[in-house]
Amino acid sequence: MTSRIAHAGLRSKIATAEEAAAFIQSGSTVGMSGFTGSGYPKSVPVALASRIEAERAAGRPFRVRVWTGASTGPELDGALAKADGIEFRLPYNSDPIAREKINSGEMSYFDMHLSQVAPMAWQGFLGPLDTAVVEVSGITPDGALIPSSSVGNNKTWLDQAKQVILEVNRWQSEALDGMHDIYYGTALPPHRKPIPLVNPGDRIGEPHFRVDPDKIVAIVETDAPDRNLPFSEPDEVARAIAGHLQEFLVNEVARGRLTKELLPLQSGVGNVANAVMAGLLDGPFENMTAFTEVIQDGMLDMLDAGKLRMASATAFSLSPESAQRFNSNAHLYRDKLILRPQEISNHPELVRRLGCIAMNGLIEADIYGNVNSTHVMGSRIQNGIGGSGDFARNAYVSIFMTPSTAKGGKISAIVPMASHVDHISQDVQVIVTEQGLADLRGLAPKQRAELIISNCAHPDYRDALRDYYDRACKTSFGRHSPNILDEALSWHRRFVETGTMLP
Amino acid sequence: MTSRIAHAGLRSKIATAEEAAAFIQSGSTVGMSGFTGSGYPKSVPVALASRIEAERAAGRPFRVRVWTGASTGPELDGALAKADGIEFRLPYNSDPIAREKINSGEMSYFDMHLSQVAPMAWQGFLGPLDTAVVEVSGITPDGALIPSSSVGNNKTWLDQAKQVILEVNRWQSEALDGMHDIYYGTALPPHRKPIPLVNPGDRIGEPHFRVDPDKIVAIVETDAPDRNLPFSEPDEVARAIAGHLQEFLVNEVARGRLTKELLPLQSGVGNVANAVMAGLLDGPFENMTAFTEVIQDGMLDMLDAGKLRMASATAFSLSPESAQRFNSNAHLYRDKLILRPQEISNHPELVRRLGCIAMNGLIEADIYGNVNSTHVMGSRIQNGIGGSGDFARNAYVSIFMTPSTAKGGKISAIVPMASHVDHISQDVQVIVTEQGLADLRGLAPKQRAELIISNCAHPDYRDALRDYYDRACKTSFGRHSPNILDEALSWHRRFVETGTMLP
Ligand SMILES: CC(C)(COP(=O)(O)OP(=O)(O)OC[C@H]1O[C@@H](n2cnc3c(N)ncnc32)[C@H](O)[C@@H]1OP(=O)(O)O)[C@@H](O)C(=O)NCCC(=O)NCCS
Ligand SMILES: CC(C)(COP(=O)(O)OP(=O)(O)OC[C@H]1O[C@@H](n2cnc3c(N)ncnc32)[C@H](O)[C@@H]1OP(=O)(O)O)[C@@H](O)C(=O)NCCC(=O)NCCS
Repeated sequence: MTSRIAHAGLRSKIATAEEAAAFIQSGSTVGMSGFTGSGYPKSVPVALASRIEAERAAGRPFRVRVWTGASTGPELDGALAKADGIEFRLPYNSDPIAREKINSGEMSYFDMHLSQVAPMAWQGFLGPLDTAVVEVSGITPDGALIPSSSVGNNKTWLDQAKQVILEVNRWQSEALDGMHDIYYGTALPPHRKPIPLVNPGDRIGEPHFRVDPDKIVAIVETDAPDRNLPFSEPDEVARAIAGHLQEFLVNEVARGRLTKELLPLQSGVGNVANAVMAGLLDGPFENMTAFTEVIQDGMLDMLDAGKLRMASATAFSLSPESAQRFNSNAHLYRDKLILRPQEISNHPELVRRLGCIAMNGLIEADIYGNVNSTHVMGSRIQNGIGGSGDFARNAYVSIFMTPSTAKGGKISAIVPMASHVDHISQDVQVIVTEQGLADLRGLAPKQRAELIISNCAHPDYRDALRDYYDRACKTSFGRHSPNILDEALSWHRRFVETGTMLP
Repeated sequence: MTSRIAHAGLRSKIATAEEAAAFIQSGSTVGMSGFTGSGYPKSVPVALASRIEAERAAGRPFRVRVWTGASTGPELDGALAKADGIEFRLPYNSDPIAREKINSGEMSYFDMHLSQVAPMAWQGFLGPLDTAVVEVSGITPDGALIPSSSVGNNKTWLDQAKQVILEVNRWQSEALDGMHDIYYGTALPPHRKPIPLVNPGDRIGEPHFRVDPDKIVAIVETDAPDRNLPFSEPDEVARAIAGHLQEFLVNEVARGRLTKELLPLQSGVGNVANAVMAGLLDGPFENMTAFTEVIQDGMLDMLDAGKLRMASATAFSLSPESAQRFNSNAHLYRDKLILRPQEISNHPELVRRLGCIAMNGLIEADIYGNVNSTHVMGSRIQNGIGGSGDFARNAYVSIFMTPSTAKGGKISAIVPMASHVDHISQDVQVIVTEQGLADLRGLAPKQRAELIISNCAHPDYRDALRDYYDRACKTSFGRHSPNILDEALSWHRRFVETGTMLP
């Protein structure tokens, strides 16, 4: 087994995960790699969690502030949250243990637009970064770092951290080398320049990360898989959503507003997004591209089928099977995949310029088209806004999709008033459920309400929504976006009290 | 009096306002010039309103769809709304008569991000545009149009409309010629290119609008002033807000996060924004620039004082006195002012690149930092989101400011839950009232709540907010953003029922 560390001097920094974790101080801020379950460090966080538990047992409380790209895996967020070792977390989490700690009020969580993490770190708005812990897939002879299966904020963590710990993971395919495009042209204002990218496939940077070797305090070798969850097989609901969406796109082509190549696709995280990609596999569109945040299984299938010409993202988010498939054939994707820093994959400038077709999931939408992507019953965080705001506001057309009900029909995804807002109605052009699609472009609030109630709501809730809306139109303080302040959140209240939104 | 119409052929199109208005059909869509009370057509809309009234009296209902840059003047929105002649309005309104029609449910209003109006019109999302009615300050010998005191969406209206009506207003200063920068480099994706602007003072376009002379059906000569409202003299509250904001900026300079030139200023509409500019006049900053939407009085004063080196905007929004002052000395501002199309003045790409310091007003903010800029009690529209979303999301630092109470203390600007959300907490870094400033950067929801309640809320409401928050922390379904669903909107309900939020 040859080492992935081709730089002789750096081999002297090889350490165990425990030795590496010993460099991290309580109270310090650690910038870790990792984006939707890929490319996160897999051994140092576990060792850190053990250390934290031992310290606590010895009466020395130990907690850190954790920054990442986005979500990670059980060996990072799961292990550290379980050890109660995370005091503060940004910018995204989907780990169930960490989620529980956040929702029980034990962990602070700053849920951010993913494109803004790096700029805000550079602007000095997030405080100093003490340690970077970054998984790479190798180190070149001259000490540059070959990125792993996600890029995220690694460039920024490596540049900004006072000390660097690397994990070199030989499980990652060697064919990843050359697939990344690390843009070193960012700056602080007033020195920012146009980002010279005009096609999703443009390369504007370098394949490797630069790092000051003197900052590297430890390098840990690992051989561990990324741990993404499998996707659920698209069910009837997901297939219906995909069908309505496809029909919408076909219509746009027919009206001359899109060509058969569509425009660069952005597809959100989760099962529904994945199912929509599966739907496009059988659709009439050809030679498509993606400018998106993560490559899920559905996109890999589209690349394989030749439907998708190329995809640009910041990370993989593949099921174990697809990750296996990718790893055995990674060289085949060399010209079709580009992984970029998340400040580039999600950059408003680029999303607007390229004219992405944004397709994201939601928790609930209200009758006026305001979307909640994050907060169950207005207070419990599910995951976070992620990149959905970067894409939705700047897209050519911003589409949100969801089953019309959740929790076996006990929750309506269409509600009188969103209990939390992540995407204002201006950023929501289309809402689609298995019931149908509401094309909200160019419509005033009451026109939107009519469509959303008729086309998207589940029949079990449709009459109640219509009744609410009709009464609001008659009694509201203002009749621009009519509401009944007393009842606007009563469906949520009923769910919390009785376990269902149904009366 | 020499004509401002230097193109001989076009002089044959000179018509009365009544003749011009006769070209407009009931049910059609009219794209008018006008942005915050400047550069709007002043005679054709009045003639159209008379025609509408006559038609209605004759039993022939007549209404049009009206698109503009932003708000206009009483001769446009006021006259047409009074005649009940507007069926649908976009993208912004601040006219009191139109506001009343919208809030009584008689007029449909689509409140849009101002940067997105032109792209969405080109994308075909808003429907066809029948007639453009555009005020210009002159016509060149070769038939190009010299823009007036606002640019707004005029380029798009002129390009897209089937027929064009011009108003040539000789009240506008001739020295406006050369002050505009009309960018003709926009395109539909996949053909969009980087916008080559890296400094607020860069010129990237042409001084005049192009127009197909064959589309021009009538030219009306006018001599009428822009009609902006005077600003109220900064009172103690506004001065306190300006003071806190200034202290914040001074601190940012001290910490090395800004230089003494600051970064390009964006200043919102309204009295408070104007007062903040007045505050900066006496501040320690020098050689500043502005990349903003409108030039209000305060900015003109800063230009005069040499504090502001240059300002880029899409329109003037000057009080009658300042407009007079500007008009008599317009030539002095030739190198210091650039007026651009609103898709450029507000472009997310440029706001992010330049790193604007965004300063906007708000109606209410909740304890977690979500901001409502538009809806009183969640249902009555005040004005619209305008460009605030374009700037707030992409700014270097996004600041929102407001008196801590409205309506003589009967309304708290800080509430348990915003009754409508225009700016999600991620887009709100600083909130400032006369009570103090909350620097929310890098903070989780509960940390934000502590600061907003302590620093920004009015003493009359502070204890009640703290009480709500404390109880929410104990009883909420989730403790990430704790709320009490039953009480979250109870302050608004109380105001609607009793005329005050105070118990
Ligand atoms: C909104 C989001 C959670 C939907 O995810 P999804 O996998 O497509 O949808 P699902 O229907 O499987 O829902 C996921 C979970 O949320 C729950 N949920 C969905 N809607 C809900 C609602 N209205 N109320 C309560 N829970 C709800 C589901 O029950 C499910 O919970 P479970 O895992 O306990 O069964 C997901 O898209 C997300 O996190 N979005 C925000 C970030 C984002 O958009 N990123 C992409 C940017 S590039
Ligand atoms: C929010 C906004 C209305 C504040 O305007 P302002 O002139 O700074 O503030 P004022 O305190 O004078 O308030 C304006 C009106 O809103 C009312 N108001 C303000 N806060 C209120 C509240 N919480 N509840 C009810 N009414 C409120 C005021 O009473 C006043 O009404 P009046 O004219 O009937 O007296 C204004 O900034 C706006 O329209 N913003 C949205 C668009 C925008 O931000 N554009 C700039 C982008 S470049």
